[in-house]
Amino acid sequence: MKNQDDANRTPVTVLGLGLMGQALAGALLRAGHPTTVWNRTAAKAGPLVAQGARLAGSVRDAVTAGPLLIVCVSDYDAVHELLDPLDEVLEGRTLVNLTSGTSRSARETAEWAARRGVTYLDGSIMAVPEAIGTADSVLVHSGPRPAFDLYEPTLRSLGAAMYLDADHGLSSLHETAVVGLMYSTLNGFLQGAAMLGAAGVNAEAFAPIAKTATGMVVDWFAGYGRQIDDGTYPALDATLDTHLAAMENVIHESEFLGVSTDLPRFVKALADRSVSDGHGADSYAALIEQFRTSSS
Amino acid sequence: MKNQDDANRTPVTVLGLGLMGQALAGALLRAGHPTTVWNRTAAKAGPLVAQGARLAGSVRDAVTAGPLLIVCVSDYDAVHELLDPLDEVLEGRTLVNLTSGTSRSARETAEWAARRGVTYLDGSIMAVPEAIGTADSVLVHSGPRPAFDLYEPTLRSLGAAMYLDADHGLSSLHETAVVGLMYSTLNGFLQGAAMLGAAGVNAEAFAPIAKTATGMVVDWFAGYGRQIDDGTYPALDATLDTHLAAMENVIHESEFLGVSTDLPRFVKALADRSVSDGHGADSYAALIEQFRTSSS
Ligand SMILES: NC(=O)c1ccc[n+]([C@@H]2O[C@H](COP(=O)([O-])OP(=O)(O)OC[C@H]3O[C@@H](n4cnc5c(N)ncnc54)[C@H](OP(=O)(O)O)[C@@H]3O)[C@@H](O)[C@H]2O)c1
Ligand SMILES: NC(=O)c1ccc[n+]([C@@H]2O[C@H](COP(=O)([O-])OP(=O)(O)OC[C@H]3O[C@@H](n4cnc5c(N)ncnc54)[C@H](OP(=O)(O)O)[C@@H]3O)[C@@H](O)[C@H]2O)c1
Repeated sequence: MKNQDDANRTPVTVLGLGLMGQALAGALLRAGHPTTVWNRTAAKAGPLVAQGARLAGSVRDAVTAGPLLIVCVSDYDAVHELLDPLDEVLEGRTLVNLTSGTSRSARETAEWAARRGVTYLDGSIMAVPEAIGTADSVLVHSGPRPAFDLYEPTLRSLGAAMYLDADHGLSSLHETAVVGLMYSTLNGFLQGAAMLGAAGVNAEAFAPIAKTATGMVVDWFAGYGRQIDDGTYPALDATLDTHLAAMENVIHESEFLGVSTDLPRFVKALADRSVSDGHGADSYAALIEQFRTSSS
Repeated sequence: MKNQDDANRTPVTVLGLGLMGQALAGALLRAGHPTTVWNRTAAKAGPLVAQGARLAGSVRDAVTAGPLLIVCVSDYDAVHELLDPLDEVLEGRTLVNLTSGTSRSARETAEWAARRGVTYLDGSIMAVPEAIGTADSVLVHSGPRPAFDLYEPTLRSLGAAMYLDADHGLSSLHETAVVGLMYSTLNGFLQGAAMLGAAGVNAEAFAPIAKTATGMVVDWFAGYGRQIDDGTYPALDATLDTHLAAMENVIHESEFLGVSTDLPRFVKALADRSVSDGHGADSYAALIEQFRTSSS
């Protein structure tokens, strides 16, 4: 079953075999990496062992299996719970932490790693588990460039592996920015699905329309981005006043249908504030000023 | 300048020459339709007249120019302000109302039209003005199918013209669903742009990353749509508990950066409610129940 180049592949240890960790280990195995795995709940390793992974008996045993350690657990507290007790066995190894967190926790973990002589890359996965190992998976990394360059061929078995910056906080920062966007988009889909559902149109029928509409919106990001960077918001497409009227329609429609108006009201309240600030004749990008303002 | 088939093209009247009305009339002219235009502020007709449009001196004059009337003004009140005084000259003509509104206002306008012997199609434009006349523009229509079929070749000069249903309310309903999704997506982009901006990353640099991330999310709509229709939400990708942790990261990151936490907190509050309802181990689609519930 093994790839004939296996001898040349970097041995990798994967700590954490949740939905994502299993996908990561699976992709490494498919790419021919000798892969050692460990999980708090050992049973989750079963399918991976069947694919050729070695199940370590302890975190220490897993860590000492090779030079490259990938950790993907629930949060940074779990990362430290696992690794803090190990100390000297970590020295000289490279830790790629694909656990989600904030830029602050990434920078703190980088300091922790430096104190222990561990080379640290903080990574963020912008993909669902089933996309891992395909071109639909993007992973961004920050930390020392040479470490990224050294292990890039390995990281590329997980998806498009990108390097961002020496500042360890940048990958988490990008992840949080992207994750917020994803939830907003999903909530917009759910609001629409609830509205159409109340009128007897099913959510699967709405999905392709929602996809087309969102596909239009993403093409506006670059232009709005330029307006944001410039600090001027000419309404080349539609004015905030026009948007506000459309937002009122979403609220009224949701009311008629008896579905939640929380999201449409939230959206309109933001635009109301921007119009009050004098941006009624500007483009949607003028709303950036509401997002920049620290909440009261 | 005129197309040689012009004699065969349906003459069209466009009432309302805002950002969108100008784009509509421009596309009709480019497709070779004899186009009569009218706008409350006549000066906006200048560029269109230069392209061959005839500027009518009054709404009545504009309406009597041909069998097909397209109206695109700010809202339905404006539509009625324009058309209510006309009465008998409208009889026998077809009105395609591309003004944004709710399903209720569309159905009321359909009744109004029926009383006046006007054939009525309610349409919704899912495009920005600059996309009108290209394949990136989608227009959905509801009302009598024969009227749509008769004028479909004309409507196709504006973009992909789709027919939805005999119920006049359906196109507005779809528009409000889609519009809500668009604003949610844009707000997610703005939150991310504000976050990265606070860390010195410009919005134009974020745009392609945001586009890639959103491109992933839209591919989940169909699967989540099926779960919503089925009423079961297996977490094949990530659990709500995992999402909740990610949402907390967005809040913390926004706090560190000193940008608004309103949107991330709104997003998390929704997920909190769903987890309280027992959906922590389910997929994101379980949140549909929050959107279905009429707001208190
Ligand atoms: N799933 C996605 O779509 C996705 C996408 C991008 C990023 N991520 C990120 O990837 C990370 C993992 O997500 P997931 O979906 O794999 O979550 P998951 O299925 O809930 O798995 C969580 C993993 O963390 C382990 N864990 C939690 N607390 C621990 C502790 N105190 N000590 C040891 N192990 C502990 C769990 O071990 P047990 O099996 O023993 O419970 C399990 O292996 C998260 O940071 C998530 O945000 C996930
Ligand atoms: N722009 C977009 O991206 C977009 C996308 C989809 C749908 N739409 C919809 O298209 C419609 C028009 O949008 P727009 O962007 O063209 O808006 P706009 O640029 O603000 O133009 C509004 C138009 O309505 C006219 N109007 C308003 N009140 C009137 C009244 N009481 N009597 C007569 N005319 C009146 C205005 O005339 P004056 O010029 O005299 O003010 C102008 O022609 C809206 O329903 C909007 O939601 C727009």
